[in-house]
Order: sequence, then structure tokens, then C-alpha cells
Amino acid sequence: FSQNSDFFLRILTLKSELKKKFTCGCRYVSKAAPKTQLEYDYDGPSMKTSVPGPRSQALTKQLGEIQNVGAVNFFCNYEESRGNYLVDVDNNRMLDVYTQISSIPIGYNHPALLKLMANPNHLSTLVNRPALGILPPENFPDKLTESLLSVSPSGMTRVQTMACGSCSNENAYKAMFIWYRNKERGHNMPSDEDVSTCMINKAPGCPDLSILSFNGGFHGRTMGCLATTHSKAIHKLDVPSFDWPMAPFPRLQYPLEEFTRENAQEEARCLEETEDVIVKWRQKGNPVAGIVIEPIQAEGGDNHASPDFFKGLRNIARKHGCAFHVDEVQTGGGATGKYWAHEHWGMDDPADIVSFSKKLLTGGYYHKDELQADKPYRIFNTWMGDPSKNLLLAEVLNVIRRENLLEEVTRSGKALLNGLYDLQAQYPGILSRARGQGTFCAIDICDDATRNSILLKARDKGVLLGGCGDRSIRFRPALIFKEYHVHIFLNIFNDVLAEHK
Amino acid sequence: FSQNSDFFLRILTLKSELKKKFTCGCRYVSKAAPKTQLEYDYDGPSMKTSVPGPRSQALTKQLGEIQNVGAVNFFCNYEESRGNYLVDVDNNRMLDVYTQISSIPIGYNHPALLKLMANPNHLSTLVNRPALGILPPENFPDKLTESLLSVSPSGMTRVQTMACGSCSNENAYKAMFIWYRNKERGHNMPSDEDVSTCMINKAPGCPDLSILSFNGGFHGRTMGCLATTHSKAIHKLDVPSFDWPMAPFPRLQYPLEEFTRENAQEEARCLEETEDVIVKWRQKGNPVAGIVIEPIQAEGGDNHASPDFFKGLRNIARKHGCAFHVDEVQTGGGATGKYWAHEHWGMDDPADIVSFSKKLLTGGYYHKDELQADKPYRIFNTWMGDPSKNLLLAEVLNVIRRENLLEEVTRSGKALLNGLYDLQAQYPGILSRARGQGTFCAIDICDDATRNSILLKARDKGVLLGGCGDRSIRFRPALIFKEYHVHIFLNIFNDVLAEHK
Repeated sequence: FSQNSDFFLRILTLKSELKKKFTCGCRYVSKAAPKTQLEYDYDGPSMKTSVPGPRSQALTKQLGEIQNVGAVNFFCNYEESRGNYLVDVDNNRMLDVYTQISSIPIGYNHPALLKLMANPNHLSTLVNRPALGILPPENFPDKLTESLLSVSPSGMTRVQTMACGSCSNENAYKAMFIWYRNKERGHNMPSDEDVSTCMINKAPGCPDLSILSFNGGFHGRTMGCLATTHSKAIHKLDVPSFDWPMAPFPRLQYPLEEFTRENAQEEARCLEETEDVIVKWRQKGNPVAGIVIEPIQAEGGDNHASPDFFKGLRNIARKHGCAFHVDEVQTGGGATGKYWAHEHWGMDDPADIVSFSKKLLTGGYYHKDELQADKPYRIFNTWMGDPSKNLLLAEVLNVIRRENLLEEVTRSGKALLNGLYDLQAQYPGILSRARGQGTFCAIDICDDATRNSILLKARDKGVLLGGCGDRSIRFRPALIFKEYHVHIFLNIFNDVLAEHK
Repeated sequence: FSQNSDFFLRILTLKSELKKKFTCGCRYVSKAAPKTQLEYDYDGPSMKTSVPGPRSQALTKQLGEIQNVGAVNFFCNYEESRGNYLVDVDNNRMLDVYTQISSIPIGYNHPALLKLMANPNHLSTLVNRPALGILPPENFPDKLTESLLSVSPSGMTRVQTMACGSCSNENAYKAMFIWYRNKERGHNMPSDEDVSTCMINKAPGCPDLSILSFNGGFHGRTMGCLATTHSKAIHKLDVPSFDWPMAPFPRLQYPLEEFTRENAQEEARCLEETEDVIVKWRQKGNPVAGIVIEPIQAEGGDNHASPDFFKGLRNIARKHGCAFHVDEVQTGGGATGKYWAHEHWGMDDPADIVSFSKKLLTGGYYHKDELQADKPYRIFNTWMGDPSKNLLLAEVLNVIRRENLLEEVTRSGKALLNGLYDLQAQYPGILSRARGQGTFCAIDICDDATRNSILLKARDKGVLLGGCGDRSIRFRPALIFKEYHVHIFLNIFNDVLAEHK
């Protein structure tokens, strides 16, 4: 196993091995980056070809024989990627501000995770995946307590793991329907008619209940989730759906603090319409069992709402007997400077269900006691998550605590947002609506074509970004993205904007 | 890393360390088991307490504070489990004939898998989970070719990975809907009306299309899958569903070869009704875009149908322009003596889509070229599977080939089924309808209560079995279940039946 030791040695000596002066243009004038460079990180982007390079193109062609590759950006060399830097198969090294659609919590090949996985005590967890609902491993309650429950949202002591974000939301919806029907019945015993009709997909066994969601919202692509997703047609087209209601999500003006009155009006309008929709759907015999919402609409374009809006919505849910589900699949895990974006609302009882995935490495959802399914096998599947992901997550949380990463995120996020404000002032014809919480930031580009062109130009200069909504750029760095990474990004972004015709 | 070497040493010396004479009752008289004992296996069950034992009970109570534990059987010590034997936290060692709901392909802690995971070259795959649809790893096309595509069903050259069985089926359904609508349109371009209506869950954008499934079928528990699941009410109750049709699955008499005429009549009846249902649903404006069926209905009670039935069904699908989806989530991966149960039908063009999960370690589906989604992001999510599972699967397939496990399964399966026939003749008041293909076997018990009592008694004597349907026992051993394991099982099962009052 000497190879293994070599591997660590290589990581620890990377800085000296790969020392190349970072020589990007420095048109963006900012204060010097503090010297807190990560030991295992690279010291800057390094581009050898345009992206995708020739090796990526050859592999894309090869994969094209097997799958639709229309969404493939390029192929990666994950072995050589480090910290905030993703290396591709053509040896291009990019500062990664998108992190696999916001799902790499503490960067690539973090030494703590490599060490964990190299520990032979964990081999058994990697090769024997249990059916968690029937035969859990001995350390399962402890692992849940140590990982997921150590960061439980307020008021939630129960958690259910799942394999991915879609399955998490599908099962959260099921839990809300079961809860709602038991409430309607006044007890947990279904009638004979309930039992017989559900077997043939008919009411009352399969009731005409609905989940209310918001325009621009994104909650996944399986059929239950898809009925609540309203961000882009490409997700929904040609797939049968449910007659479930959609309410308006506020369209705020940024910076939020400069448009307090206008934004409050817009939010009041949306709350009023939401309540109307709930009443209307109940009247037409399709009552709303649950309301699902993202604390920041991510895929739909990084749309924010104020704590007052969410408090109002929570009250509407309570008033009309609907469960309140906060979907933190993309916002959860620390990027807003708190473990959960909804913590910024400052509520003791913010939600009935909170779902997660991505940065949490496992999917799943937290819920209040009363949302616990009353019988076994109602919320169930073979694997119900994967203990090897819980293992990694426990260590990720250790690193977050040990390195005070939430504070770092708050600090880097301020630097990022201030930088975006500055650039927006400098390029008012291109940039607008800079916004964010922590490093979970976004900015709008004048149009779709320009946005896409800027994304490609930034990539060729060594910065990997993602789009969202119609014409936004979303920033989704790892939690180890420091202030000096912000400045590397801002310098390159400034170059791209300056060159833009 | 000396611990690691110790770990292997321990496995390889297990036989001598743990040598305890297996002293079960031997009322079932059978030929002596051949001496092909696995090096890393235990030599028999060993029970210290009834199950669940005190430690399991304490842990169940602890987990009960976090989750519904109604389905939990007991807690496991996966580190100490080996080959065909599952060890629990009270140090009971059971012959596992259920294998985590049929999802442990080559037994617990197989040395080949432990070796693979201990290889430091794979650490990066374990800690950096990519968003496969946009940024695949360099070896992704090769890994797919080496693993999943090396066992492709006939006529299928394309494969899409997913995280679990439910997501696999949900996405297979979506692929069929997209294919069907493009066929209806005559091209891939949706109309403006398609695009605008899909955003609010209305036809024609979200069309009134359906998937036809069969009574007793099981395809998963997310909302699309659930609409096609008809095995037990507990799965479906209180969850809104689609108005999708259900056709009758043949109810055959066993042994199949003794009731050829009766079974052919029953299958003809079901095919006729299936065709009627397709016509009826088209007439009411909800055409069948796809037909989904298991080659052996597993969760619903191990119900078989003949190759002729499936050929007839395939022809009906073709005649009515429906896609044909064979769900091999439980039957796939070798347990029937072939990689895919549908290979027993002997067809060149058996299906349009074949889904898998469980023994394949990753979820996903194969499909014909024409079922390829026409645009990127239509079949998509963040992770779309997990390369660490592909890595394990490639090695599982190596072991299957190297050790000729499919031949072994055929041999063990014959011994198992013959043993069940013998016991059925001996206990006609308790047992009936022994049936199976390879080791994918089942037998019916006189009633539900007796079935459950037999399962518990067998467990206390060191054999772990699973139920299915109303009153069946299903056998789902790993592929390393040999003839001598069959005899260990038969002896214990015979003891349980003999003691039964």
C-alpha cells in the first residue's frame, strides 16, 4: 500500500510541484487577497487549450454512441482536481465556481475525505450496501445523529435518507399526503373503499389532493416533482402531469434594501394570490395538502424573497391546514453562510418538512414528528440512501466546523457581492440585478446570447460558472472558496467583460 | 496501512478461526453437498439469541426516535458478515437467502470488492461525485462499456445510469412519453402551445398519455412508478395518481409443464384483455404510450408467465404503437441463470427499454436508439448515477465471469426447486405452488399468518428469507449460493415445517 502514501505525499507537495505564477490580467482593482491559501489547492487557473479540448471532444464522441451528450461540457480528470480547481482531460485547470451544480461541499480531493476513504475500517461500508429500512448497520442511529441530526433545522428531530434530490422530494410529498389524509379521516385507519380504490388509481384511495408550488420553482424531474417544477419547458414537455396549482413567486428589485417598499408590495400581492389559489383549488375538489418552495429559487434564476414573505406564507399554510415544505436541495449545506437558507428567516417553526441533497452528499428530508408516516413501508424503497454517503457527510461537517467554513463563506460572499456591485456599476449595459446571500450569488446579463457567450469566454480563461433562469449567471463555489479566490474570479470576469463587444 | 493487510488476512483465515461444526437437524434427506466451499464464507449458521436480540432491540428503540422503524428486522454487523452469511449485532449468523431484498450480487465482503475499494487509485472516485450529465470523468465511456454495456440486452446499445430503481423507471417512462409524442408530431419540434401549456401542467404540453401496467405488478414508489404499481395497498394509499390502465397478469398453475393447456388459456385471456384496455384508453383520449411489465412479478408474489405470453405482449405493443418496457430491477443481474430474465424468452427484439437496479448496484435503463431523448436536459438530474457504483459493478461482473456464477446459479436453482418440490409433497397442507427460474424461486404457504410465523421460525434457526405477495416466500440468494447452501437451507426449512403445528 505504498502507492497510497505516495498519493498523500503528492497532494501535500502540490504547491511546490505546481508552482506557476498566476498571471491573469488585473483590471479589476481590489484589495490584496489575504494569505490563507489552502495547502491542497492549486494557486490559479492554467489553460492549455480552449474548452472542450481535443481529448474532451474525442471522449464526447465516444460517449455519444452510448448516451445523449448534448449537455456534456467537457470530460474531467478528477484525480488531478484539487480544492477549488477542476482539471479537465486536456490538462486545463479551472477555478470552479459551479462545483458540479452546487454539489461538491469542500472542494475536490479534500485530504480529510481521502484519508477517511483510505481507512480500511470503512471498506465494509463501501462494499455491502444495506436495505436500510429493514436491516440497518449497527452504527446507523449514531451516524445519523453525528451527521444529519447535528445540523437539524429548528423543530425537526426526525430525518429520512434517500438516494437523490428527486426521490427526497417525491417522498416528502407522499409524507404530506399521508399526513393530510389521516387528518381528514381523524384517525389512521383507511376505509375499505380507500383500500380497494387505491389499487386502481382512483379516489378516495388515491385522493384528488395537490401540492402548491410557485412559478419559476424547481423541485426535480420525476413525475411528482415535475408537477411542481415550473422553471423551464424542457423539463416538463411531453410528460403527463397533475392538475396542481401554481402561485406567483415575487419578482423583486435589487439591491433589496433600496426597494423595500416596492418589494413589500410585490410580496403582498403574491401572498394574496397564493391564498386565493388555495381557496380555489379546495373549491374545485382538489385541496392543497402541502406547499413547496425554495428559500432562493435556484434553477429558475436565483430569485429571492424576504423573511417577511416566508413568514406570511408559513402562516397561510397553517391557516389553511397545508403542510409547509422548504426545498433546500440546492440552498442547503452552508453556501448562504448558514447550514440552511431558511435560518435567515429567524423563525422557531420555519417548516414541517425540509428536503436536501447535493452538498449533503446523501438525499433525504427532515420532518416534524407529526409528519412521520404512521405505518412501515409507506415511505420505503430498497436502499433508502447509502451509508457510505453518510460517512462522507459526517466528515464534511467536521471539516466545516473545524475550519469555521460558514464564517468564511459569509466573508467571501460579501467580497463576491461587493465585487459584483462594482462590476455592475462599471458595465451597466451588460450587468444588472447582482444579488446573493453568502456565496450563493447571481447576476443578470443583458440577454441570453450574451450570457452564454460570457460563460464560454470565462471558461476559456479558466473560470467555470453556471447559468440559471433565462439570462442569469449563478455562483455556486465550494465552502472553501476564500476571499482570494473571489479576487481571482473578479479579475478574470472583468477581463471577459472588458473584451466583450 | 498495516491494518488493511490484517483485514485481508482475517478474511482468508476465517475458515480456520471460525471452524464450528454445523449441527442442524437433518430430517431432509438429500445427496451430500459437493465440497466447493467458498474460502471467505462461514461454514454454517450460528445462533446465540432469538432475533431480534437485545442489542438489536436497543438500537431499534434508538432509531425509533429518528425514523419509523416498523419495517426494521434487526441491526447488522456488516463488518463480520461474509459470503452467504449475514451477522447481526447480537452475534447471530444467518444464511441469507434474501440478500437485502435481492441486492447483494456476490455476497458480503467479497474479497475482490474489498481489494478493489482498498486500491488507492480509486479514492478519487469515492470522494468526488460528478454531475455525470455535464462533467463526466475521463473513464466514464470505458467504464460503461466494460460494465453495463458488456451485458446489454439484445438490440440495446445505449444505457442511462440513475441513482435507484424508482428513478430508473420514472426516467424510462419519461423517455417513452417523449418518444411517443415526437412520433405523434412527426418531428421533434413542439408547438408554441405545447411549450406554454406544459408550464402549467396542461395538455397538450403535458399530454393525457398513459403507461399500461399489470395487476400485481411492482415498479417503485415515486409518483409515476406508483401509478403503475398494483401489488399492495400500503404502497399506494393516500397518494394522488394518474388515470392509467391496468391489465390482468396471468394467474398460472404450477408446475408450469403440468398445466400447459390451462395456462395457455389463461395467458390468451390476459392478452385479449390487455388489447381491449389499450383500445379503450385510446378511445377515452388517454392513449397508452408504453407497456411496463416484470419478467417475473416479484414483490407481487413471484408470478410467472410463459415466453409465449411475453412474445404476444411484445406484438401487441408493436401493433398499437406502444413502447415495451421490461422492468428487470429485481429479476436482472443473474439470479435466473441469465443476466436478464427476459433472455429466457429467446427473442432478438425483446424490448424497447430494460430498467435495472439492485444487483446491478447502480440504477439505470438500457434502450434502443429510437428511445434516445432528442434533446439534452430532458432526461437529466444532478448526479445521474454514481461512478463509484459503476466501479464496483465492473468487478462484480468480472467475478461472475471468472467463477462461472450463472452456471452455478442454474445448478443451485435446480437443487433448490427440486428440494421445494420434495417438501411440498411431504407437507401438502402447508406448501404449494413451488416455482422458480435459477435460484429466483418461491413457494406458497397455506395462509398469511402461517407464512409469517414460518419466516420468523426459520430466522431463529439461522435462515433469513423474505415474503412476497399475500402468502408466498421468495428466495433471493446471492449468486454465490451453492448446492451445499441449498441443502443447509432445506434441512433447516424441513425442521421448521416438521415443528409447525
